[in-house]
Formats: sequence, C-alpha cells, structure tokens
Amino acid sequence: MSVMAELSMFPMAPQSRGSLSPYVARVLTVIRQSGLTHQLGPMGTVIEGEWDAVMSCVSACFKELEKDCDRVYMTLKIDWKRGNDSRMTSKTQAVMDKL
Amino acid sequence: MSVMAELSMFPMAPQSRGSLSPYVARVLTVIRQSGLTHQLGPMGTVIEGEWDAVMSCVSACFKELEKDCDRVYMTLKIDWKRGNDSRMTSKTQAVMDKL
Amino acid sequence: MSVMAELSMFPMAPQSRGSLSPYVARVLTVIRQSGLTHQLGPMGTVIEGEWDAVMSCVSACFKELEKDCDRVYMTLKIDWKRGNDSRMTSKTQAVMDKL
Amino acid sequence: MSVMAELSMFPMAPQSRGSLSPYVARVLTVIRQSGLTHQLGPMGTVIEGEWDAVMSCVSACFKELEKDCDRVYMTLKIDWKRGNDSRMTSKTQAVMDKL
Repeated sequence: MSVMAELSMFPMAPQSRGSLSPYVARVLTVIRQSGLTHQLGPMGTVIEGEWDAVMSCVSACFKELEKDCDRVYMTLKIDWKRGNDSRMTSKTQAVMDKL
Repeated sequence: MSVMAELSMFPMAPQSRGSLSPYVARVLTVIRQSGLTHQLGPMGTVIEGEWDAVMSCVSACFKELEKDCDRVYMTLKIDWKRGNDSRMTSKTQAVMDKL
Repeated sequence: MSVMAELSMFPMAPQSRGSLSPYVARVLTVIRQSGLTHQLGPMGTVIEGEWDAVMSCVSACFKELEKDCDRVYMTLKIDWKRGNDSRMTSKTQAVMDKL
Repeated sequence: MSVMAELSMFPMAPQSRGSLSPYVARVLTVIRQSGLTHQLGPMGTVIEGEWDAVMSCVSACFKELEKDCDRVYMTLKIDWKRGNDSRMTSKTQAVMDKL
C-alpha cells in the first residue's frame, strides 16, 4: 500500500463531440475492476497499492483506450513511501491537522 | 470559472524529519486566502477560477515557500475550457453518470 | 535564473487534422519573444528564468491559444533552486559526469 | 515505437548534500541498459518504445531507487500515437518547420 499514484488518461482527439467523460468512465471501470483503493477527482484519479499492482492497473487502463483511440495522453504522478500504511486519507488529514 | 488547476508544490529538501505536511498546510492556507474554490486531495490541490486569478494564487503559494526553502518542486496541471460554468463537481459527475 | 520550467500546452480538440505542431509552434514563438532561455523537446519546452518572468511567459502562451481554442490542456513542471546560476546545461552535465 | 514518455524520478529526501544527480545517473543507467531510444533533458528523460517495454523500463528505474531510498517521487507523461514511426526527432522537427 505504499504507492500513491494520480492518473490522468484521455484520448487526444476524442469523438462524440469532444466530451472526455465516456473515456474517463471506461478508465475508471478498469480501475474498479483492479480492486485497488482509488478516488476519482476533477483532474485525475488517485490509486493506491503496491508498485506492480498500480502499474499493471495503469497498463490495463491504456489497453482499454488503445482499442479505439488513435492517440492517448497520460500523466502519472507517483509518491512512493516505504511502509505498509495506507495514505489515501492520512496524507490530507496530516495537512488539515496543521491548519 | 473556466480553469481547473491541480497544484502540487513542496520543498525538495524539507526539514522537520522529512514530513511535507507542514509545507502543504502553508500552501493550502495561501489558497484559502485567495478565496478561490479548491479541493485538497492526497496528491495535490485542485483550484478553480479565472486564469489570472489561479496563476496569481500559484505564485503566492510559491512566494510563501520561497521564504525558507532552498529548492521547491511544483507540478501544475491545467484543463481550461471556454465558458463560465464551474466544473469542480460536474466533471466527476459526468463520469459517474456514465458508469 | 533560478526557475527551470517544463511546459506542455496544447488544445484538447485541435482542428487541422488533429496535428498539434501548429499550436506548439505558436507557443514556441511566444516563448522566443519573451527572450528567456529555452529548449524545445519532444514532450515539452524547458524555459529558464526568474519566477515572475517564467510565469508571465506561460500566461502569454495561454493567451495565444485562448484566441481560437475552446479547450487547452497544460502541464507545467518547475524545479526552483535558490541562486543565480543557469542550470539549463549544468543539470544534465552533472548527471553525465556521474555515469 | 509509438510511446513517447517523459520520466522524472528522484528521491524526496536525498542524502549526499541534497544533490539529485547521482540518483538521476542511476536511473539513466537503467534506461541505457533497456536499449530504448532516449534523450536526457534538464527536467526529465524522454524514452521511446512500445508501451510494455517503456513501462518495464520505468519499473526497473523505480526498483533501482527503491534499494536505498525511503521516498521516491515520479512524474511520467506519455503521448501515445498509433503507428510504427519514431517521433523522437520528428515531433520537434514538425514544430520547427512551422516557425
């Protein structure tokens, strides 16, 4: 549970009047199927897990969009910390405690 | 209200046993003082507003850390869409509607 | 000369058969006009300068694309280090020296 | 040869007086050993190849730093385009042609 990864992935030239949400929904479905803890946000989805599991999930998301997209853009931001504790809520809590 | 910006900003060589949360709390305080709509997440804070207001806020965050940090790292991801509607909740809602 | 900034900026729904290069060329022209040291790469352009000058340049790039684009995506990655030395070549040189 | 990936990976709390270059050199050594086309820049290294090969390389870079770092930060930006052509030089050339 040591990787916190924020993933944004979308087609560069989307069909269906330019809306990206159908593609993000497909990516989110793949993330859900991975069983990993995750949190959808307005600029990306944060996924938590072990390195290999998170990277497998990211690759599965790409394979999903690769099916019918000709160009895909992705940004992946990872904060890895040694240890077994989940940080999905503790990272923000640690900040709130200091306000 | 057309810029959605996700900001991550932190010192590269933090003091106080390596914890970043005190610095994130200072950045978040600056964002709060800007009056802009925002949402703290585990990998960054999403800020919404007009371009100039968001960029002024980002600069104010930097000036805060610059006071006592010798090296600062930042990633800023922006999705700008023409129009006046707030997208802080509608972007994720549009995805959820398609699941 | 203490900010190293890597900028990627492009329209989400480009016209002209989906090619992004005309837009990147317009962004690069704005960067050139700023007079800041810069380096075009395959995934973004690195700009070096003082914080305010770099951020003004980034805003000018956005204002250029805002003219005729309805949606613009940007990622900006900044490494700021206190001091006056240029790092455009020294950062990579320090790495090469250690190979 | 359809993935262009820009990788930045470094320890959050580096030893040896805060310099990151020894770590970047280790990451670059792993990238070299992968045999993938790459280009070191001041803010990251661009790697080109097939999806699985690039992601394997990124994971190998992480495993290298995981050996002795307690916290690692990574940003990975990918532009994937269907097709077999190398874009390491053609992407910037297409921009230069339009100036």
